[in-house]
Amino acid sequence: MTLFALPGIPLVKPGDDPGGLIVEALETAGLMLESRDVVAVTSKIVSKAEGRLVRLADVYPSARARRIAARCRKDPRLVQVILDESQKVSRLRPGLIIVKHRLGFVCANAGVDRSNVQPPQPDGDPVVACGESVLLLPANPDRSAAKLRQQLGAATGVDVAVVIVDSHGRAHRMGTVGVAVGAAGLPALEDWRGRQDLFGRPLEHTAVGLADQIASAASLLMGQAAEGTPVVLVRGVPFSPREGTAADLVRPPELDLYS
Amino acid sequence: MTLFALPGIPLVKPGDDPGGLIVEALETAGLMLESRDVVAVTSKIVSKAEGRLVRLADVYPSARARRIAARCRKDPRLVQVILDESQKVSRLRPGLIIVKHRLGFVCANAGVDRSNVQPPQPDGDPVVACGESVLLLPANPDRSAAKLRQQLGAATGVDVAVVIVDSHGRAHRMGTVGVAVGAAGLPALEDWRGRQDLFGRPLEHTAVGLADQIASAASLLMGQAAEGTPVVLVRGVPFSPREGTAADLVRPPELDLYS
Repeated sequence: MTLFALPGIPLVKPGDDPGGLIVEALETAGLMLESRDVVAVTSKIVSKAEGRLVRLADVYPSARARRIAARCRKDPRLVQVILDESQKVSRLRPGLIIVKHRLGFVCANAGVDRSNVQPPQPDGDPVVACGESVLLLPANPDRSAAKLRQQLGAATGVDVAVVIVDSHGRAHRMGTVGVAVGAAGLPALEDWRGRQDLFGRPLEHTAVGLADQIASAASLLMGQAAEGTPVVLVRGVPFSPREGTAADLVRPPELDLYS
Repeated sequence: MTLFALPGIPLVKPGDDPGGLIVEALETAGLMLESRDVVAVTSKIVSKAEGRLVRLADVYPSARARRIAARCRKDPRLVQVILDESQKVSRLRPGLIIVKHRLGFVCANAGVDRSNVQPPQPDGDPVVACGESVLLLPANPDRSAAKLRQQLGAATGVDVAVVIVDSHGRAHRMGTVGVAVGAAGLPALEDWRGRQDLFGRPLEHTAVGLADQIASAASLLMGQAAEGTPVVLVRGVPFSPREGTAADLVRPPELDLYS
């Protein structure tokens, strides 16, 4: 199994076409896609291309956002943006707000990111020129992954899988790891029911977080800044030829004992 | 970054020397270790070599184990083994027991495994000949990792890192992923404080679960059965030259909002 950090992806701006940028970068790097390759893409460049930037100066925090902001000691406008992206607040502490994102993920700050969003530039892009902006997750990362997959297939004639990667903290364990917030072309949650161990007994674990493991592997090369190397080509991952989405990785409330 | 599934590791028995088996398999495969390689090893072969097998026929369940077994509908002897490996029970449901392992990990069944433990053989190894056995995690996986690292260094003259891998389920997300239960020779939890994003702002996430991401990457090649390919060589992971252990990945109770 080999992972290539794809060089030459420029800083992405709203309206850019990540599929086109990836095809160009592959050509420049002399890399040919192969069938069953997985293209791992940081959610940040997908979000930026989709224009998922919110200028904090444009946000008017509600009374609830101001109350929560006082408790977690964050900018009330940022808290309003986080609440707008969330189904509910899961945990609240000074410095920390963990929510159930509208897409179902439990994560800090609803995945809203201040880093690597270009600060105000006097003569910069008008979208980010008038004050600090924050970056939301893609509107529908599974759909973004499917679209990227379709674009890459059309441009290269090769059927690849796509995983859109974000970094999440975790219950019980320290440190962030790469997780899949979007996926297409592979069984994001791979069902192993029916498989047997070496001695013919059914396996105890019945499902593997395949797309999350790929996201963690790719994260090793993306780094946290995730814009030096926003795209990692993962070759040689064994997986069964089934479709799935990152939504399959969201634990339904009735199965989540730590809600 | 390249991952090699090391072929030719035989089924491990109590008393075997995993370090020696890995060195032999590397030679047979014609693979030379390189400085900063990470050798990822499934916890199962380390446990087996350490003789961490318990015959259920030898276990006398306590009243508490029987009470808990009735609630989670598991073999009371297995529950006793799980309790013996645990600090406390975290969640209990029919079919499921999640504990805080004595090493601090929160995981199902205290990592006690029934799969790939050889069933009774009429003329087999006396250790497993008299009834079904289960396999515990290594006694001290960080120490096992340090020992393996030292052995590999002595045999090859190359300083490598070692990660001992188990598969854990997770709060909030479906599917198991590879995690590090032991580590040596690398910053298992990599501190990114002080690093800046592309625009010079401090990064929001301050620590990355490096060894967990490596474990997840290696798991992609180990498969769930994890004895066809119990050792994966991971080459080209960027990490800072600092020591750490898997214990660094255990979230302290006061920082765990989902205990």
